[in-house]
Amino acid sequence: MQRFAIGIEFCGMRYKGWQTQQAGVRSIQETMEKVLSKIADEPIILHGAGRTDAGVHATNMVAHFDTNAIRPMRGWLMGSNSQLPKDISIQWIKEMDMDFHARFKAKARRYRYVVYQSANRPALLHKQVTHAYYPLDVDKMIEAAQKFEGTHNFESFRAAACQSNQPVRHVKHCRLIRHGNYLVLDIQADGFLHHMVRNIMGCLLEVGQGLYEIDHIDEIFAAEDRKAAGITAPPDGLYFIHADYPEQFELPKMPLGPHWLNMPE
Amino acid sequence: MQRFAIGIEFCGMRYKGWQTQQAGVRSIQETMEKVLSKIADEPIILHGAGRTDAGVHATNMVAHFDTNAIRPMRGWLMGSNSQLPKDISIQWIKEMDMDFHARFKAKARRYRYVVYQSANRPALLHKQVTHAYYPLDVDKMIEAAQKFEGTHNFESFRAAACQSNQPVRHVKHCRLIRHGNYLVLDIQADGFLHHMVRNIMGCLLEVGQGLYEIDHIDEIFAAEDRKAAGITAPPDGLYFIHADYPEQFELPKMPLGPHWLNMPE
Repeated sequence: MQRFAIGIEFCGMRYKGWQTQQAGVRSIQETMEKVLSKIADEPIILHGAGRTDAGVHATNMVAHFDTNAIRPMRGWLMGSNSQLPKDISIQWIKEMDMDFHARFKAKARRYRYVVYQSANRPALLHKQVTHAYYPLDVDKMIEAAQKFEGTHNFESFRAAACQSNQPVRHVKHCRLIRHGNYLVLDIQADGFLHHMVRNIMGCLLEVGQGLYEIDHIDEIFAAEDRKAAGITAPPDGLYFIHADYPEQFELPKMPLGPHWLNMPE
Repeated sequence: MQRFAIGIEFCGMRYKGWQTQQAGVRSIQETMEKVLSKIADEPIILHGAGRTDAGVHATNMVAHFDTNAIRPMRGWLMGSNSQLPKDISIQWIKEMDMDFHARFKAKARRYRYVVYQSANRPALLHKQVTHAYYPLDVDKMIEAAQKFEGTHNFESFRAAACQSNQPVRHVKHCRLIRHGNYLVLDIQADGFLHHMVRNIMGCLLEVGQGLYEIDHIDEIFAAEDRKAAGITAPPDGLYFIHADYPEQFELPKMPLGPHWLNMPE
């Protein structure tokens, strides 16, 4: 039995998220398991570093699987990519010891949320960015983003359907960056609650539109109630970009995406 | 009767090009005419600055139409964009005198062709860039691109189906630019023959792969025969980015796209 780790880029617009419980609904995990099982000629179960919502993308989602099948590394990678749909692609594969686990060994996850600012709806990157046609006070948003750094109870920023048994998370960094016509939220935390990044982004967009002042975020936190916060930003602009593991596992270092953003790290 | 000019961004992956003669085949022009006709409540005919192939994109395709309908400018723009499919969007609209003509008054057209270099297939921007998984001698390609500048007989670089009655074109500039993981061909000419940009790019990719030396391009030109040249690069990476009109028409100056490329002009 051999354990493998893989890094996956996917465009989530056609999928109901990384994982689904519903039969007959297309998920990234299920789509990949089908292809890997064909290559391995035995059933393959994939464990991902994180679960992403319907419509959310990834540039380097890490996952692992175990198999008895013996194939050249190139066979796993090229074989899978030739059979996967064009909006899913394995970027790397690595043999791992059995003590690696994509979900339980991840110390942190990192996301980017990309907002495209323009008066008119973009036709390019439809469903791959979130469009803001309204004016935004970006300086205020940059300052507001810092409110989310550190250890907080994110009860007000998680979905009602969130299955996590506790709402405290440690956010290592939460930065809003201007990049051409884009606003990019770059956020890293030990873990994320359901809809957490989208709810934080929704709050920042409301601050940017002047719906409330930055200090109101303290009150939203204090309420510990989802209804105290605002909108959930759409999944379109959200990318899972990195999972952080202990050095010992020596996973490949990939550039932070999405690749078209060409943004300094 | 009032003439209007519009600037259109579109993602061409679902369309059979700007214009089609075939019934029941989806073109950009036909899709837009249907929506504009609904807004105008009379049949609208759209004249574009250029015709693009199936799968080719645009960031600022200029077109014009005439109408008796009186609508606020916002109505034309926002009304159309709310009814157009998500992969087509009008970026600006301007009232014009009747001496303007999107096709006949255009002095030059400009395209960009975007190649994404990576060992593995990208899942993001699928069908919106051309993927080169093989190594390329980019310095050689940059030098080779200059061969296409100036006035040439492009017989060897046009499709068999090309309907133009003469194959001489003046190429104002033809530059290959490194931009992160991308190679971008930026080319402007008075006009383009059928498949001309894609055939030039095909030639540059062959030079980059070492299939022949730069000087061989002279022989390809001299042959005046499509069979002397190489592959037609796929439509995926091609963007119509600009049409140049006399100053007097005062058309809006738009940033050169595609917007996600964030490339200096």
